Amino acid sequence: MITDRERAVFEAGIKLGALYHQWVGTPVSRETAEMIEHAIEESVSLQPFVTGITVHLDRSMMDPNPFGYSEVKGAMFSVGIETRVGDVRCRAALEFDGRYPLMKVMECD
Amino acid sequence: MITDRERAVFEAGIKLGALYHQWVGTPVSRETAEMIEHAIEESVSLQPFVTGITVHLDRSMMDPNPFGYSEVKGAMFSVGIETRVGDVRCRAALEFDGRYPLMKVMECD
Amino acid sequence: MITDRERAVFEAGIKLGALYHQWVGTPVSRETAEMIEHAIEESVSLQPFVTGITVHLDRSMMDPNPFGYSEVKGAMFSVGIETRVGDVRCRAALEFDGRYPLMKVMECD
Amino acid sequence: MITDRERAVFEAGIKLGALYHQWVGTPVSRETAEMIEHAIEESVSLQPFVTGITVHLDRSMMDPNPFGYSEVKGAMFSVGIETRVGDVRCRAALEFDGRYPLMKVMECD
Repeated sequence: MITDRERAVFEAGIKLGALYHQWVGTPVSRETAEMIEHAIEESVSLQPFVTGITVHLDRSMMDPNPFGYSEVKGAMFSVGIETRVGDVRCRAALEFDGRYPLMKVMECD
Repeated sequence: MITDRERAVFEAGIKLGALYHQWVGTPVSRETAEMIEHAIEESVSLQPFVTGITVHLDRSMMDPNPFGYSEVKGAMFSVGIETRVGDVRCRAALEFDGRYPLMKVMECD
Repeated sequence: MITDRERAVFEAGIKLGALYHQWVGTPVSRETAEMIEHAIEESVSLQPFVTGITVHLDRSMMDPNPFGYSEVKGAMFSVGIETRVGDVRCRAALEFDGRYPLMKVMECD
Repeated sequence: MITDRERAVFEAGIKLGALYHQWVGTPVSRETAEMIEHAIEESVSLQPFVTGITVHLDRSMMDPNPFGYSEVKGAMFSVGIETRVGDVRCRAALEFDGRYPLMKVMECD
């Protein structure tokens, strides 16, 4: 027996794992960061059970390479996601903790 | 309050979403499919809370393109994963249901 | 001895190979396709030697899955790219030829 | 008029750009690095016009994260590729130059 709460948590995990591995490596700069954040938000919002998502990329990590741009790295991500299954909503996050881009469940209600 | 069971389910979701988006697009053929399956298994096994994983790619979907190979597609995946957090183990799966590569929690104990 | 013309062609190849494998798998729908096209164009434009790029995704291939969206597939791409090294400009393209997403050099001048 | 030499160079660029963006982000450790190198070599070898490829991942950059593994990063790559179109063979490389994972044509004959 899997509860709605467990499914909501599972769906949040899927989306965080997916976006991380889909978007890492994308060329980005401080000028295009907002556009990429928006593209990730819009893409993830298409997926089932997602009721909210905010994506922020840390500009301070976008040191330009010799050609003047950077790449999306896991440590840049600050993501909050909300999923809903049945009546249960869960919030989860992807945040760099100084050493690792950590994904965690924040709360369900 | 997030339970071990919820965390185990969350971690399983992360891994399934991650592997899907990491590996889709990889050139593959019937001859190299086993090697790719093994590479995915070994890579996912490095990640935290994973206690077991089996990956199968459907060879019947690997129609060779004019150059004699194919690409990993979401529909090819048949994946079983087991995660463990504290004393709780959960099993989840990624299976093509005829229309969609569906990820689902199978059971926890 | 590598000529500017050869380098321009090489750089065009890099960008086409890169964008294909970066973006395949991204969730997309007819509503978000233009935004994704724009995101790819802006991202590739950051890379060295790129002087022009147009990306079109074939909406007719975006059959909605049971959850109402699709994914970027190689066959959807129609891309034109222009690179410049020294005084030489080259144009290359990625187009689905009915069986394969073909990349080819169009012309240099 | 595109020469065989230009096409061989173009094809080498495609493969280097493709492999970079396909494999960046893959979980890896010093123990699994050789398996991943081999998987990349086998996958790229399936693609048209490739007559040789060697992939090396710099183990010294694989600092373990708190969970004991690392991820494939662009800077880790040391790749040599040979393509052939008609009678022309070209060699190209992807090497970290200290600041940037540089792709370059080495020679054609």
